[in-house]
Amino acid sequence: MSYDLWYWPSIQGRGEFVRLFMAAAGIEWRDCAREKDAEALLDDMDERKEKGFAPYAPPYLVDGDFAIAQVAHIVTWLSEKHDIGAADEADKLHLIQLQLDITDIVEEVHSVHHPVASSLYYDDQKDAAEQAAEKFREERIPKYFDHFEQALGVKDGGPFSLGSTWSHFDTSLFQLVEGLEYAFPRRMAAIKDDYPMIFACRDAVALIDGLAAYVASEDRIPFNEDGIFRHYPELDAA
Amino acid sequence: MSYDLWYWPSIQGRGEFVRLFMAAAGIEWRDCAREKDAEALLDDMDERKEKGFAPYAPPYLVDGDFAIAQVAHIVTWLSEKHDIGAADEADKLHLIQLQLDITDIVEEVHSVHHPVASSLYYDDQKDAAEQAAEKFREERIPKYFDHFEQALGVKDGGPFSLGSTWSHFDTSLFQLVEGLEYAFPRRMAAIKDDYPMIFACRDAVALIDGLAAYVASEDRIPFNEDGIFRHYPELDAA
Repeated sequence: MSYDLWYWPSIQGRGEFVRLFMAAAGIEWRDCAREKDAEALLDDMDERKEKGFAPYAPPYLVDGDFAIAQVAHIVTWLSEKHDIGAADEADKLHLIQLQLDITDIVEEVHSVHHPVASSLYYDDQKDAAEQAAEKFREERIPKYFDHFEQALGVKDGGPFSLGSTWSHFDTSLFQLVEGLEYAFPRRMAAIKDDYPMIFACRDAVALIDGLAAYVASEDRIPFNEDGIFRHYPELDAA
Repeated sequence: MSYDLWYWPSIQGRGEFVRLFMAAAGIEWRDCAREKDAEALLDDMDERKEKGFAPYAPPYLVDGDFAIAQVAHIVTWLSEKHDIGAADEADKLHLIQLQLDITDIVEEVHSVHHPVASSLYYDDQKDAAEQAAEKFREERIPKYFDHFEQALGVKDGGPFSLGSTWSHFDTSLFQLVEGLEYAFPRRMAAIKDDYPMIFACRDAVALIDGLAAYVASEDRIPFNEDGIFRHYPELDAA
Protein backbone atom coordinates (compact mmCIF):
# COMPACT_ATOMS: atom_id res chain seq x y z
CA MET A 1 0.00 0.00 0.00
CA SER A 2 1.01 3.60 -0.46
CA TYR A 3 0.03 6.84 1.29
CA ASP A 4 -0.48 10.29 -0.14
CA LEU A 5 1.75 12.82 1.60
CA TRP A 6 0.86 16.49 1.24
CA TYR A 7 3.49 19.06 2.06
CA TRP A 8 5.03 22.19 0.57
CA PRO A 9 6.98 21.08 -2.49
CA SER A 10 10.19 23.11 -2.21
CA ILE A 11 11.37 22.57 1.37
CA GLN A 12 12.14 19.69 3.71
CA GLY A 13 10.28 21.42 6.51
CA ARG A 14 8.12 19.45 8.90
CA GLY A 15 7.22 17.03 6.11
CA GLU A 16 10.76 15.66 6.19
CA PHE A 17 10.25 14.07 9.62
CA VAL A 18 7.41 12.03 8.15
CA ARG A 19 9.37 11.17 4.99
CA LEU A 20 12.41 9.95 6.93
CA PHE A 21 10.29 7.76 9.16
CA MET A 22 8.49 6.22 6.18
CA ALA A 23 11.76 5.72 4.29
CA ALA A 24 13.32 3.93 7.29
CA ALA A 25 10.21 1.78 7.72
CA GLY A 26 9.98 0.86 4.04
CA ILE A 27 6.57 2.52 3.77
CA GLU A 28 5.74 3.86 0.32
CA TRP A 29 4.29 7.28 -0.30
CA ARG A 30 3.39 9.65 -3.10
CA ASP A 31 4.62 13.21 -2.55
CA CYS A 32 1.53 14.84 -4.02
CA ALA A 33 2.43 18.53 -4.02
CA ARG A 34 5.81 17.72 -5.57
CA GLU A 35 4.10 15.82 -8.37
CA LYS A 36 1.78 18.81 -8.81
CA ASP A 37 2.45 22.14 -7.05
CA ALA A 38 1.74 24.22 -3.95
CA GLU A 39 -1.56 25.37 -5.46
CA ALA A 40 -2.75 21.76 -5.56
CA LEU A 41 -1.90 21.45 -1.87
CA LEU A 42 -3.97 24.52 -1.02
CA ASP A 43 -6.86 23.21 -3.12
CA ASP A 44 -6.69 19.83 -1.42
CA MET A 45 -6.77 21.46 2.02
CA ASP A 46 -9.78 23.56 1.03
CA GLU A 47 -11.64 20.51 -0.24
CA ARG A 48 -11.05 18.67 3.02
CA LYS A 49 -12.76 21.47 4.93
CA GLU A 50 -15.93 20.72 3.01
CA LYS A 51 -15.80 17.06 3.96
CA GLY A 52 -15.07 16.89 7.69
CA PHE A 53 -12.19 17.26 10.13
CA ALA A 54 -9.39 18.93 8.21
CA PRO A 55 -5.69 19.60 8.79
CA TYR A 56 -4.75 22.99 10.18
CA ALA A 57 -1.55 22.87 8.16
CA PRO A 58 0.60 20.47 6.18
CA PRO A 59 2.18 17.95 6.45
CA TYR A 60 -0.69 15.51 6.38
CA LEU A 61 -0.94 11.94 5.23
CA VAL A 62 -3.92 10.50 3.41
CA ASP A 63 -5.06 6.89 3.64
CA GLY A 64 -8.25 6.46 1.65
CA ASP A 65 -10.88 8.74 3.19
CA PHE A 66 -8.80 9.39 6.27
CA ALA A 67 -6.28 12.22 6.61
CA ILE A 68 -3.99 12.78 9.58
CA ALA A 69 -1.92 15.88 10.38
CA GLN A 70 0.69 16.97 12.93
CA VAL A 71 4.10 15.31 12.62
CA ALA A 72 4.17 13.66 16.05
CA HIS A 73 0.67 12.33 15.49
CA ILE A 74 1.43 11.00 12.00
CA VAL A 75 4.58 9.09 12.96
CA THR A 76 2.92 7.70 16.09
CA TRP A 77 -0.05 6.50 14.07
CA LEU A 78 2.19 4.95 11.40
CA SER A 79 4.29 3.23 14.08
CA GLU A 80 1.21 1.60 15.55
CA LYS A 81 -0.18 0.62 12.17
CA HIS A 82 3.07 -0.84 10.82
CA ASP A 83 4.29 -2.20 14.15
CA ILE A 84 7.52 -0.20 14.24
CA GLY A 85 9.40 0.57 17.44
CA ALA A 86 8.20 -0.19 20.94
CA ALA A 87 6.13 -3.21 21.94
CA ASP A 88 5.84 -2.19 25.58
CA GLU A 89 3.01 0.26 26.32
CA ALA A 90 5.03 2.52 28.66
CA ASP A 91 7.86 2.69 26.11
CA LYS A 92 5.37 3.66 23.40
CA LEU A 93 4.07 6.48 25.56
CA HIS A 94 7.57 7.70 26.36
CA LEU A 95 8.50 7.75 22.69
CA ILE A 96 5.45 9.86 21.87
CA GLN A 97 6.45 12.23 24.66
CA LEU A 98 9.98 12.50 23.25
CA GLN A 99 8.58 13.06 19.76
CA LEU A 100 6.51 15.95 21.16
CA ASP A 101 9.66 17.37 22.73
CA ILE A 102 11.18 17.33 19.24
CA THR A 103 8.09 19.15 17.93
CA ASP A 104 8.80 21.84 20.53
CA ILE A 105 12.44 22.37 19.64
CA VAL A 106 11.62 22.36 15.93
CA GLU A 107 9.17 25.17 16.57
CA GLU A 108 11.90 27.02 18.48
CA VAL A 109 14.38 26.56 15.62
CA HIS A 110 11.92 28.22 13.27
CA SER A 111 11.27 31.05 15.71
CA VAL A 112 15.00 31.84 15.84
CA HIS A 113 14.92 33.29 12.32
CA HIS A 114 11.30 34.43 12.62
CA PRO A 115 10.95 35.65 16.21
CA VAL A 116 8.39 38.36 15.52
CA ALA A 117 6.14 36.75 12.93
CA SER A 118 6.38 33.97 10.37
CA SER A 119 4.63 36.25 7.89
CA LEU A 120 7.41 38.89 7.99
CA TYR A 121 10.67 38.61 6.06
CA TYR A 122 13.80 37.54 7.90
CA ASP A 123 15.48 40.84 7.02
CA ASP A 124 12.68 42.72 8.77
CA GLN A 125 13.28 40.93 12.07
CA LYS A 126 17.02 40.38 11.89
CA ASP A 127 17.95 42.23 15.09
CA ALA A 128 15.49 40.21 17.14
CA ALA A 129 16.68 37.07 15.32
CA GLU A 130 20.29 37.69 16.33
CA GLN A 131 19.27 38.02 19.98
CA ALA A 132 17.02 34.97 19.72
CA ALA A 133 19.80 32.94 18.09
CA GLU A 134 22.23 33.66 20.91
CA LYS A 135 19.72 32.43 23.50
CA PHE A 136 18.83 29.43 21.37
CA ARG A 137 22.46 28.40 20.89
CA GLU A 138 23.51 28.94 24.47
CA GLU A 139 20.43 27.95 26.47
CA ARG A 140 17.93 26.01 24.44
CA ILE A 141 20.13 23.58 22.46
CA PRO A 142 21.93 22.40 25.63
CA LYS A 143 18.67 22.09 27.55
CA TYR A 144 17.01 19.92 24.91
CA PHE A 145 20.20 17.99 24.16
CA ASP A 146 20.75 17.18 27.84
CA HIS A 147 17.22 15.82 27.83
CA PHE A 148 17.65 13.70 24.70
CA GLU A 149 21.06 12.43 25.85
CA GLN A 150 19.46 11.36 29.14
CA ALA A 151 16.65 9.59 27.27
CA LEU A 152 19.11 7.70 25.06
CA GLY A 153 20.85 6.40 28.19
CA VAL A 154 17.73 4.81 29.69
CA LYS A 155 17.92 1.51 27.81
CA ASP A 156 21.19 -0.37 27.87
CA GLY A 157 23.37 -0.70 24.85
CA GLY A 158 22.03 1.85 22.39
CA PRO A 159 22.40 3.18 19.83
CA PHE A 160 18.66 3.94 19.71
CA SER A 161 16.30 5.10 22.41
CA LEU A 162 14.96 1.56 22.75
CA GLY A 163 18.42 -0.02 22.49
CA SER A 164 18.92 -1.95 19.26
CA THR A 165 15.42 -1.23 17.84
CA TRP A 166 14.90 2.10 16.12
CA SER A 167 11.70 4.14 16.47
CA HIS A 168 10.10 7.34 15.20
CA PHE A 169 11.94 9.27 17.89
CA ASP A 170 15.31 8.22 16.49
CA THR A 171 14.52 9.17 12.90
CA SER A 172 13.26 12.57 14.10
CA LEU A 173 16.36 13.05 16.25
CA PHE A 174 18.45 12.29 13.15
CA GLN A 175 16.72 15.09 11.26
CA LEU A 176 16.99 17.48 14.18
CA VAL A 177 20.76 16.93 14.42
CA GLU A 178 21.22 17.13 10.65
CA GLY A 179 19.22 20.33 10.54
CA LEU A 180 21.02 21.95 13.44
CA GLU A 181 24.39 21.04 11.93
CA TYR A 182 23.28 22.73 8.71
CA ALA A 183 21.96 25.84 10.46
CA PHE A 184 24.48 26.19 13.30
CA PRO A 185 27.66 24.35 12.21
CA ARG A 186 29.96 26.22 14.55
CA ARG A 187 27.77 25.72 17.59
CA MET A 188 27.15 22.07 16.84
CA ALA A 189 30.86 21.36 16.35
CA ALA A 190 31.54 23.01 19.71
CA ILE A 191 29.08 20.85 21.67
CA LYS A 192 29.40 17.56 19.79
CA ASP A 193 31.67 15.88 22.33
CA ASP A 194 29.20 16.60 25.11
CA TYR A 195 26.52 14.44 23.53
CA PRO A 196 28.05 11.12 22.45
CA MET A 197 24.77 9.20 22.52
CA ILE A 198 22.86 11.71 20.42
CA PHE A 199 25.52 11.68 17.72
CA ALA A 200 25.87 7.89 17.88
CA CYS A 201 22.10 7.63 17.43
CA ARG A 202 22.24 10.02 14.46
CA ASP A 203 25.02 7.94 12.89
CA ALA A 204 23.11 4.70 13.46
CA VAL A 205 19.92 6.09 11.96
CA ALA A 206 21.90 7.18 8.91
CA LEU A 207 22.69 3.49 8.29
CA ILE A 208 19.08 2.24 8.26
CA ASP A 209 18.77 0.89 4.70
CA GLY A 210 15.61 2.61 3.49
CA LEU A 211 16.52 5.92 5.10
CA ALA A 212 20.09 5.81 3.75
CA ALA A 213 18.75 5.21 0.23
CA TYR A 214 16.26 8.06 0.55
CA VAL A 215 18.81 10.52 1.93
CA ALA A 216 21.22 9.69 -0.94
CA SER A 217 18.49 10.11 -3.56
CA GLU A 218 17.23 13.15 -5.38
CA ASP A 219 13.95 12.77 -3.50
CA ARG A 220 15.61 14.45 -0.51
CA ILE A 221 15.34 18.19 -1.08
CA PRO A 222 18.53 19.87 0.17
CA PHE A 223 18.33 22.11 3.24
CA ASN A 224 17.68 25.67 2.11
CA GLU A 225 16.86 29.12 3.44
CA ASP A 226 13.10 28.72 2.97
CA GLY A 227 12.83 25.81 5.40
CA ILE A 228 12.92 25.42 9.16
CA PHE A 229 16.68 24.90 9.47
CA ARG A 230 18.33 27.90 7.77
CA HIS A 231 22.00 28.70 7.64
CA TYR A 232 22.43 32.40 8.27
CA PRO A 233 26.10 32.74 9.29
CA GLU A 234 25.32 35.78 11.45
CA LEU A 235 23.09 33.59 13.65
CA ASP A 236 25.78 31.01 14.35
CA ALA A 237 28.72 31.05 16.76
CA ALA A 238 30.65 28.44 18.71
CA MET B 1 -7.78 6.65 42.46
CA SER B 2 -5.86 9.91 42.39
CA TYR B 3 -2.96 11.18 40.29
CA ASP B 4 -0.05 13.36 41.27
CA LEU B 5 0.13 16.46 39.07
CA TRP B 6 3.40 18.37 39.01
CA TYR B 7 3.39 21.91 37.71
CA TRP B 8 4.65 25.36 38.68
CA PRO B 9 2.66 26.39 41.75
CA SER B 10 1.88 30.05 41.01
CA ILE B 11 0.48 30.06 37.47
CA GLN B 12 -2.26 28.34 35.49
CA GLY B 13 0.13 27.80 32.61
CA ARG B 14 0.07 24.60 30.63
CA GLY B 15 -0.91 22.67 33.75
CA GLU B 16 -4.35 24.27 33.65
CA PHE B 17 -5.33 22.37 30.50
CA VAL B 18 -4.74 19.13 32.39
CA ARG B 19 -6.53 20.37 35.52
CA LEU B 20 -9.63 21.46 33.59
CA PHE B 21 -9.86 18.14 31.79
CA MET B 22 -9.55 16.20 35.04
CA ALA B 23 -12.08 18.45 36.79
CA ALA B 24 -14.59 17.95 33.98
CA ALA B 25 -14.03 14.19 34.01
CA GLY B 26 -14.32 13.88 37.79
CA ILE B 27 -10.74 12.60 38.02
CA GLU B 28 -9.01 13.38 41.32
CA TRP B 29 -5.51 14.75 41.57
CA ARG B 30 -3.03 16.10 44.07
CA ASP B 31 -1.34 19.33 42.98
CA CYS B 32 2.06 18.42 44.40
CA ALA B 33 4.08 21.59 43.85
CA ARG B 34 1.24 23.66 45.29
CA GLU B 35 1.22 21.50 48.42
CA LYS B 36 5.00 21.95 48.59
CA ASP B 37 6.83 24.46 46.38
CA ALA B 38 8.65 24.97 43.07
CA GLU B 39 11.84 23.58 44.59
CA ALA B 40 10.07 20.28 45.25
CA LEU B 41 9.05 20.18 41.59
CA LEU B 42 12.63 20.68 40.43
CA ASP B 43 13.82 17.98 42.86
CA ASP B 44 11.18 15.57 41.62
CA MET B 45 12.21 16.18 38.00
CA ASP B 46 15.87 15.57 38.86
CA GLU B 47 15.03 12.33 40.63
CA ARG B 48 13.11 11.08 37.61
CA LYS B 49 16.21 11.50 35.44
CA GLU B 50 17.98 8.96 37.63
CA LYS B 51 15.20 6.42 37.17
CA GLY B 52 14.35 6.34 33.46
CA PHE B 53 12.49 8.33 30.83
CA ALA B 54 11.87 11.75 32.36
CA PRO B 55 9.75 14.79 31.50
CA TYR B 56 11.46 17.60 29.61
CA ALA B 57 9.26 20.08 31.44
CA PRO B 58 6.15 20.24 33.60
CA PRO B 59 3.25 19.63 33.58
CA TYR B 60 3.48 15.90 34.13
CA LEU B 61 1.15 13.44 35.75
CA VAL B 62 2.28 10.55 37.92
CA ASP B 63 0.46 7.24 38.24
CA GLY B 64 2.49 4.92 40.46
CA ASP B 65 5.86 4.38 38.77
CA PHE B 66 4.72 5.92 35.51
CA ALA B 67 4.98 9.61 34.65
CA ILE B 68 3.62 11.25 31.51
CA ALA B 69 4.36 14.75 30.19
CA GLN B 70 3.20 17.03 27.37
CA VAL B 71 -0.34 18.38 27.70
CA ALA B 72 -1.78 16.86 24.53
CA HIS B 73 -0.27 13.50 25.45
CA ILE B 74 -1.55 13.61 29.04
CA VAL B 75 -5.16 14.43 28.17
CA THR B 76 -5.19 11.88 25.36
CA TRP B 77 -3.87 9.20 27.69
CA LEU B 78 -6.39 10.10 30.39
CA SER B 79 -9.24 10.08 27.85
CA GLU B 80 -8.36 6.56 26.80
CA LYS B 81 -7.90 5.33 30.35
CA HIS B 82 -11.12 6.85 31.68
CA ASP B 83 -13.13 6.37 28.51
CA ILE B 84 -13.95 10.05 27.98
CA GLY B 85 -14.88 11.50 24.62
CA ALA B 86 -14.79 9.67 21.30
CA ALA B 87 -15.58 5.98 20.85
CA ASP B 88 -14.84 6.00 17.11
CA GLU B 89 -11.16 5.52 16.21
CA ALA B 90 -11.07 8.20 13.49
CA ASP B 91 -12.77 10.68 15.83
CA LYS B 92 -10.20 9.92 18.51
CA LEU B 93 -7.38 10.64 16.09
CA HIS B 94 -8.99 13.87 14.92
CA LEU B 95 -9.38 15.05 18.50
CA ILE B 96 -5.69 14.42 19.20
CA GLN B 97 -4.86 16.39 16.06
CA LEU B 98 -7.02 19.29 17.23
CA GLN B 99 -5.46 19.13 20.68
CA LEU B 100 -2.03 19.42 19.04
CA ASP B 101 -3.27 22.46 17.12
CA ILE B 102 -4.16 23.98 20.50
CA THR B 103 -0.65 23.18 21.73
CA ASP B 104 0.65 25.18 18.75
CA ILE B 105 -1.45 28.28 19.35
CA VAL B 106 -0.68 28.17 23.09
CA GLU B 107 3.02 28.25 22.21
CA GLU B 108 2.33 31.22 19.93
CA VAL B 109 0.45 33.06 22.67
CA HIS B 110 3.47 32.74 24.92
CA SER B 111 5.83 33.89 22.17
CA VAL B 112 3.81 37.09 21.73
CA HIS B 113 5.09 38.49 25.03
CA HIS B 114 8.42 36.64 24.78
CA PRO B 115 9.31 36.75 21.08
CA VAL B 116 13.09 36.85 21.54
CA ALA B 117 13.64 34.46 24.45
CA SER B 118 11.60 33.09 27.34
CA SER B 119 14.61 33.71 29.59
CA LEU B 120 14.57 37.49 28.99
CA TYR B 121 12.21 39.91 30.75
CA TYR B 122 9.18 41.17 28.88
CA ASP B 123 10.43 44.75 29.23
CA ASP B 124 13.63 43.81 27.40
CA GLN B 125 11.72 42.57 24.34
CA LYS B 126 8.75 44.90 24.38
CA ASP B 127 9.25 46.41 20.92
CA ALA B 128 9.39 42.99 19.31
CA ALA B 129 6.40 41.95 21.44
CA GLU B 130 4.30 44.83 20.15
CA GLN B 131 5.03 43.83 16.56
CA ALA B 132 4.41 40.17 17.35
CA ALA B 133 1.12 41.00 19.08
CA GLU B 134 -0.19 42.84 16.05
CA LYS B 135 0.50 39.87 13.79
CA PHE B 136 -0.89 37.47 16.35
CA ARG B 137 -4.13 39.43 16.77
CA GLU B 138 -4.68 40.08 13.08
CA GLU B 139 -3.37 36.93 11.41
CA ARG B 140 -2.91 34.07 13.83
CA ILE B 141 -6.06 34.26 15.97
CA PRO B 142 -8.34 34.33 12.89
CA LYS B 143 -6.42 31.51 11.21
CA TYR B 144 -6.67 29.20 14.21
CA PHE B 145 -10.22 30.27 15.02
CA ASP B 146 -11.39 29.62 11.45
CA HIS B 147 -9.93 26.15 11.84
CA PHE B 148 -11.58 25.43 15.20
CA GLU B 149 -14.91 26.86 14.03
CA GLN B 150 -14.77 24.55 11.02
CA ALA B 151 -13.98 21.57 13.27
CA LEU B 152 -16.93 22.34 15.55
CA GLY B 153 -19.23 22.28 12.54
CA VAL B 154 -18.30 18.76 11.43
CA LYS B 155 -20.70 16.89 13.72
CA ASP B 156 -24.31 17.97 13.72
CA GLY B 157 -25.89 19.71 16.63
CA GLY B 158 -22.98 20.80 18.80
CA PRO B 159 -22.16 22.32 21.16
CA PHE B 160 -19.01 20.17 21.38
CA SER B 161 -16.68 18.89 18.68
CA LEU B 162 -18.32 15.47 18.89
CA GLY B 163 -21.85 16.92 19.17
CA SER B 164 -23.39 16.39 22.59
CA THR B 165 -20.37 14.55 24.09
CA TRP B 166 -17.52 16.66 25.38
CA SER B 167 -13.86 15.72 24.94
CA HIS B 168 -10.37 16.92 25.87
CA PHE B 169 -10.41 19.20 22.84
CA ASP B 170 -13.43 21.09 24.18
CA THR B 171 -11.98 21.65 27.66
CA SER B 172 -8.75 22.91 26.10
CA LEU B 173 -10.67 25.18 23.73
CA PHE B 174 -12.49 26.57 26.77
CA GLN B 175 -9.17 27.49 28.39
CA LEU B 176 -7.82 28.94 25.15
CA VAL B 177 -10.82 31.23 24.78
CA GLU B 178 -10.79 32.21 28.47
CA GLY B 179 -7.10 32.97 28.26
CA LEU B 180 -7.34 34.98 25.07
CA GLU B 181 -10.25 36.97 26.50
CA TYR B 182 -8.09 37.77 29.51
CA ALA B 183 -5.04 38.70 27.45
CA PHE B 184 -6.69 40.38 24.45
CA PRO B 185 -10.15 41.54 25.60
CA ARG B 186 -10.55 44.18 22.89
CA ARG B 187 -9.55 41.86 20.08
CA MET B 188 -11.70 39.02 21.34
CA ALA B 189 -14.76 41.26 21.70
CA ALA B 190 -14.23 42.44 18.13
CA ILE B 191 -14.19 38.93 16.62
CA LYS B 192 -16.67 37.17 18.89
CA ASP B 193 -19.59 37.32 16.47
CA ASP B 194 -17.51 35.66 13.75
CA TYR B 195 -17.12 32.46 15.76
CA PRO B 196 -20.50 31.45 17.19
CA MET B 197 -19.63 27.76 17.56
CA ILE B 198 -16.36 28.39 19.40
CA PHE B 199 -18.08 30.63 21.93
CA ALA B 200 -21.06 28.28 22.27
CA CYS B 201 -18.62 25.45 22.95
CA ARG B 202 -16.82 27.56 25.55
CA ASP B 203 -20.14 28.36 27.24
CA ALA B 204 -21.21 24.71 27.21
CA VAL B 205 -17.89 23.55 28.70
CA ALA B 206 -18.31 26.12 31.48
CA LEU B 207 -21.48 24.26 32.51
CA ILE B 208 -19.87 20.82 32.93
CA ASP B 209 -20.42 20.13 36.64
CA GLY B 210 -16.93 19.22 37.78
CA LEU B 211 -15.28 21.91 35.71
CA ALA B 212 -17.74 24.57 36.86
CA ALA B 213 -17.06 23.67 40.49
CA TYR B 214 -13.29 23.78 39.93
CA VAL B 215 -13.38 27.12 38.10
CA ALA B 216 -15.48 28.65 40.90
CA SER B 217 -13.14 27.32 43.60
CA GLU B 218 -9.97 28.75 45.07
CA ASP B 219 -8.08 25.89 43.45
CA ARG B 220 -8.19 27.81 40.18
CA ILE B 221 -5.27 30.25 40.25
CA PRO B 222 -6.36 33.53 38.61
CA PHE B 223 -4.80 34.51 35.30
CA ASN B 224 -1.71 36.62 35.98
CA GLU B 225 1.26 38.21 34.26
CA ASP B 226 3.60 35.31 34.98
CA GLY B 227 1.56 32.81 32.99
CA ILE B 228 1.00 32.10 29.31
CA PHE B 229 -1.98 34.41 28.86
CA ARG B 230 -0.88 37.86 30.04
CA HIS B 231 -2.84 41.06 29.86
CA TYR B 232 -0.51 43.82 28.71
CA PRO B 233 -2.88 46.55 27.46
CA GLU B 234 -0.27 47.78 24.97
CA LEU B 235 -0.43 44.40 23.20
CA ASP B 236 -4.20 44.48 22.70
CA ALA B 237 -6.35 46.29 20.13
CA ALA B 238 -9.67 45.65 18.46
